[in-house]
Amino acid sequence: MPAKQPKKWEASKTVIGVDIGGTRIKIGLVDPRGTVLLFKAFPTRVDLGKNQVLTRIAAGLAAVLRQVREKGIFPEIIGIGAAGLIDRPKGVVLLSPNFPDWEEVPLGPYLTRKLGLPCFLDNDANAITLGEKWAGAGRDLPNFVCLTLGTGVGSGLILDNQLWYGSQGFGPEIGHMTIRPGGERCDCGNRGCLETLASATYLVKTAAKGLLKNASPILARKMACSSAPLSAQVIFETALQGDRFCLSLFKTLGQSLGIASANLVQILGLDGIVLGGGVSKASTIFLPYLMKEFKRRLTLIPSEKIAIRISSLGDISGVLGAAAAAQERWSQQSPFGR
Amino acid sequence: MPAKQPKKWEASKTVIGVDIGGTRIKIGLVDPRGTVLLFKAFPTRVDLGKNQVLTRIAAGLAAVLRQVREKGIFPEIIGIGAAGLIDRPKGVVLLSPNFPDWEEVPLGPYLTRKLGLPCFLDNDANAITLGEKWAGAGRDLPNFVCLTLGTGVGSGLILDNQLWYGSQGFGPEIGHMTIRPGGERCDCGNRGCLETLASATYLVKTAAKGLLKNASPILARKMACSSAPLSAQVIFETALQGDRFCLSLFKTLGQSLGIASANLVQILGLDGIVLGGGVSKASTIFLPYLMKEFKRRLTLIPSEKIAIRISSLGDISGVLGAAAAAQERWSQQSPFGR
Repeated sequence: MPAKQPKKWEASKTVIGVDIGGTRIKIGLVDPRGTVLLFKAFPTRVDLGKNQVLTRIAAGLAAVLRQVREKGIFPEIIGIGAAGLIDRPKGVVLLSPNFPDWEEVPLGPYLTRKLGLPCFLDNDANAITLGEKWAGAGRDLPNFVCLTLGTGVGSGLILDNQLWYGSQGFGPEIGHMTIRPGGERCDCGNRGCLETLASATYLVKTAAKGLLKNASPILARKMACSSAPLSAQVIFETALQGDRFCLSLFKTLGQSLGIASANLVQILGLDGIVLGGGVSKASTIFLPYLMKEFKRRLTLIPSEKIAIRISSLGDISGVLGAAAAAQERWSQQSPFGR
Repeated sequence: MPAKQPKKWEASKTVIGVDIGGTRIKIGLVDPRGTVLLFKAFPTRVDLGKNQVLTRIAAGLAAVLRQVREKGIFPEIIGIGAAGLIDRPKGVVLLSPNFPDWEEVPLGPYLTRKLGLPCFLDNDANAITLGEKWAGAGRDLPNFVCLTLGTGVGSGLILDNQLWYGSQGFGPEIGHMTIRPGGERCDCGNRGCLETLASATYLVKTAAKGLLKNASPILARKMACSSAPLSAQVIFETALQGDRFCLSLFKTLGQSLGIASANLVQILGLDGIVLGGGVSKASTIFLPYLMKEFKRRLTLIPSEKIAIRISSLGDISGVLGAAAAAQERWSQQSPFGR
């Protein structure tokens, strides 16, 4: 099979990228080099219900468009990334983990109509992966997996320099790869999924159980003095202080990611793995465990040839990725609703 | 990403396919429709050492070529499938599990020189997978994995109707996906690989351990009355008689394949899994366990949309696949040694 030419990631136009999260909606103006020129974020307010959230998104976008047009910049397309099951061709959110009342919401056509610009919708993890390829840690990798470690574990797959969607058209669900066959029940119904071992939810759930058993007096004292709920951030800070229980959670998390990474590289002959999402900020603690497990299990390919990288895009990864995904499709098809 | 056009599997010429196994060398004349017109097999005789084995392969091929040319058929290329790490562009066997004394053996150039026909070399599991795509159980599947269950677990991956080789160029090593992190040590160095749970070696090793503990009186009686060594075949026959211990081995094997299949479909959005190799003949016993585990773990894609199939190519799968792989490459590049 002849190697495909890598896509030109230099896009011709400035694009708006939107990242619709469960807590915040982020909007960015992205230039053809993948630089985010303007970045806005406001609370999602899931509690307001579907119609009001949709109105908030449209209003936020309209405000940003006014602002940039006043500066003489005229974006021609909008890219949107949202968690959940996405019908890309139709621009419809079929199901969303963040919005329980969203079922078959035609987000793409709705925003296209409201704003008068073609709006392309994709799964947030697919979009972020394309952003890593365009302007992030995957720039030089023809074949890689991106895992976003947050409330859950999202994933995207670049094969031959392009996003891989698979026969069903949704992209990979690596968070639901079985790592421990007899492990904890996952929300998806399976047991021992990567997501039950490598997400913020894993850290918080397991720490809460540990607190009941008095496994970490330091963490218990912190929680007693604080009004904030238990979070991955607090567990990370406590681990940094040397707390053995909190460290052990990151050890399991790292080892689980090491098993998953070795599996993925051995199945697909990848060049690397890129880790993003909030939990990846704790890589100083979990990366050594990940690498040890990865090297132990990657027996047929020299592990030093494989790049294991932490995303450096941070808060902007979602809007950058959504912009990249929209550009990719803009060059290939006419948008819906036109 | 626009869907690629499926390859035309109708080849223009008749091809010789060779399957070099640890016990037998198989040679087949394959017509443009994927029908094996002539099939020969002879013992490999690993004990004779590298040079004599090479001579035997060349002599066997020369005899078949004479025979078919006398009938007025003039094959123009030869495809060879061999287990192990293969440098495809150079036609070199880097390492072979079947031939301990083969290291960097230039099998392709050697046979090209000896026979005067371009000889293309590929990994046997990759070749078999292409054979399943061409004329087997994968004909209608754009994206599938083929697992060959034999002494080990070989694998090939069809993505977008083409073999996937990955960045290292060797194709997938799904047999070394971790299924049970704390499981048995695999020959590769990892623990709990699929190969340690779904190969003939697993069946024989575990049955031998069971015999020491008197786990199966029926199997023990059979072995006492037989001069043949313990084999997957005998374990299968004993399971068919209802022996609970032997059945339990196939249950574990089926469940392990179910976990692996669900992982692969969820990672890649596949249309199906094709199972071949000697152990797949025992699918009457292990398939129900495989399907139950597969459905339990495939939570995000409706399992009824996924085809789990047993190869029906049998003994000819290797030569058919080697012929398919050679045809594929013949149309793309000039052979070495010319």
